[in-house]
Amino acid sequence: MLDFDYYIPTEVFFGRNKIQRIAKKIKKYGNRILFVYGQGSINRIGLYDEIVKILNDNGIVYKELSGVKPNPRIDSVIKGVELCRQNNLEFILAVGGGSVIDCAKAISAGFYYKGDPWDLFLRKAHVLDGLPLGSVLTLAATGSEMNGNSVVSNADTKEKLVISSDLLRPRFSVLDPTYTFSVPQNQTAAGVVDIFSHVLEQYFSPIKEAFLQDRLAEAILKTCIKYGPIALKEPENYESRATLLWVSSLALNGLLSYGKIGDWATHYIEHEVSAIYDVTHGVGLAILTPHWMEYVLKESTTNKFYEYAKNVWGVEGSNLNKVSQEGIIKTKEFFYSLGMPSTLQEIGVKQDSLEEIAKKAIIFGDLGSFQKLNKDDILNILKNSF
Amino acid sequence: MLDFDYYIPTEVFFGRNKIQRIAKKIKKYGNRILFVYGQGSINRIGLYDEIVKILNDNGIVYKELSGVKPNPRIDSVIKGVELCRQNNLEFILAVGGGSVIDCAKAISAGFYYKGDPWDLFLRKAHVLDGLPLGSVLTLAATGSEMNGNSVVSNADTKEKLVISSDLLRPRFSVLDPTYTFSVPQNQTAAGVVDIFSHVLEQYFSPIKEAFLQDRLAEAILKTCIKYGPIALKEPENYESRATLLWVSSLALNGLLSYGKIGDWATHYIEHEVSAIYDVTHGVGLAILTPHWMEYVLKESTTNKFYEYAKNVWGVEGSNLNKVSQEGIIKTKEFFYSLGMPSTLQEIGVKQDSLEEIAKKAIIFGDLGSFQKLNKDDILNILKNSF
Repeated sequence: MLDFDYYIPTEVFFGRNKIQRIAKKIKKYGNRILFVYGQGSINRIGLYDEIVKILNDNGIVYKELSGVKPNPRIDSVIKGVELCRQNNLEFILAVGGGSVIDCAKAISAGFYYKGDPWDLFLRKAHVLDGLPLGSVLTLAATGSEMNGNSVVSNADTKEKLVISSDLLRPRFSVLDPTYTFSVPQNQTAAGVVDIFSHVLEQYFSPIKEAFLQDRLAEAILKTCIKYGPIALKEPENYESRATLLWVSSLALNGLLSYGKIGDWATHYIEHEVSAIYDVTHGVGLAILTPHWMEYVLKESTTNKFYEYAKNVWGVEGSNLNKVSQEGIIKTKEFFYSLGMPSTLQEIGVKQDSLEEIAKKAIIFGDLGSFQKLNKDDILNILKNSF
Repeated sequence: MLDFDYYIPTEVFFGRNKIQRIAKKIKKYGNRILFVYGQGSINRIGLYDEIVKILNDNGIVYKELSGVKPNPRIDSVIKGVELCRQNNLEFILAVGGGSVIDCAKAISAGFYYKGDPWDLFLRKAHVLDGLPLGSVLTLAATGSEMNGNSVVSNADTKEKLVISSDLLRPRFSVLDPTYTFSVPQNQTAAGVVDIFSHVLEQYFSPIKEAFLQDRLAEAILKTCIKYGPIALKEPENYESRATLLWVSSLALNGLLSYGKIGDWATHYIEHEVSAIYDVTHGVGLAILTPHWMEYVLKESTTNKFYEYAKNVWGVEGSNLNKVSQEGIIKTKEFFYSLGMPSTLQEIGVKQDSLEEIAKKAIIFGDLGSFQKLNKDDILNILKNSF
């Protein structure tokens, strides 16, 4: 186990009607807030009206930033920063899925940075402070509700990049499973794949001794396998929605990675696919993950794949390679059973862009830690996924 | 899954030499501290000198409260409160195992309470505020380093009672596994049993649907089963000491209980045993736990015991009762293999005190939630454990 510093300060209010908690929490930071949301789903479920009522009843002044897109754009971030500055706002309330929360985090960091917020994503500048923010989650997927990560896209340059800082962790997050009842099948499925992938990125690690973390990871993977299909079949099944919501948070709040190193190659490759094609993150991951697995499975990595197949999928047998292969097939079948496509071609990716995707994926250097991948490796994985 | 509020704000500095972090963290709260420790083990491992040097180098004034006993006494708490008040102390640094940290928490709560601190334990008054505290852990066992619980004994009344409040959670905890290298075998083993028992108390719950929490619990149980024996055989095996230290924190920081209800009957019974006989908590738990299991195993609870035997111990078979029984036997054998005694008689408990123990165990009402236990049930368990 590696050394680590553990810090997960986000308060989570989990359950029906926990939205009533927000006013008191917000007022610790001020009475003037930016209310960030997406493209209308919060209106459809009545959440918009509910929040506006709470804000008004409690004398909280709000400016709205709406229309944040699924792969949130730096343009929205810039607009949000301006709104905060012009109106002396003191707090950001993000209501929606991971994209809305990620956008809010970038605004939070951008507020204290004098230059172009995109500089932070290009690693030309560091996050030095953040306007406090809170979230109300409506989609189980990214885990943004409990961590300090923000992924933002730049439509002009076709880039999709990440910043990460403990300063950007939400002060609180409201997780009311009923808000996710109306999430459509394809988004529910993509969310499950995203959660599953977050766990895999931390499970497959160069740190061989992390017994506890690996067993915790397997617990979360098994939970996705059990409840993903139930949520698809019965969208208003409270237990499945609640469990998926809570695993989405635990999968990426740090719990699984303290004491080890993650891989994240698949995530970085997918970011470049969706930077160009604006596909749903989980959909891209569903296609790429099994091909990443097949590519990096070799004699030196078989033990880990064997463990994965055995402990997560219950594959039996003593032939390491055969069991490992079976674990990969099970993964592929699981994603497919959720309704995910299995090739890049199906989602509109053009073959002649694979080279560009591979090139952009390594702008900060080779990818991966479980298995190092250079540009050629990435191109091979993309071709296999095509 | 039940509704819950998640809040685990303690920062953990995990690894070798992380002690160097404490000065900066303490100074956020003040320059005058109470330095609480136990009966000398921190001197033997050189930690006392190291801390004194850090405090002196950073201009932190400290008053000492030493000699805190394994079942910490209310007398020490009262002394600590007086020291804090007389010297205008602003922060408490607890260095030791769970008892020292528990004592520091009670001082923290007692500081803001005008009456006798024991009132808080008798539930005559509530914890309304706490002097900030931090911990440096030297023993993997109670999980006190990340939670708001404090267990204190009253030697005069032979009572051992608990208070619990988020206000008492340490602001930071230093977890350096090398501090636990010199923990003797019996204490190491008792610590493992304590951790194991904390998980069981949350695993056996009246809330039937808590799939995720139960898989996480099993992950921690399997980790104890793997690393407990290694730490006993190789006291300076870093990985085993590190893993046990981290599971001790995760077993009782809230992670396993959010969304469900714990049982805790065995813990409360054990508290009454050690209130009278001053035995090590983990030793008492090792004796009582298998008998609690045998007593509450019945048709209505077999499914859970079957799940436990199968998932934690790998017991195979389809006969629910047989598999369940086998799981209990495995538990008993595990504790025995760690060197734990298996009867109350062995640790000096007198048969004629069992009635008194059972009576005192229910002073706040019947025990348990997985299975309700009245005084007669408790007496039966004690007799079976005798």
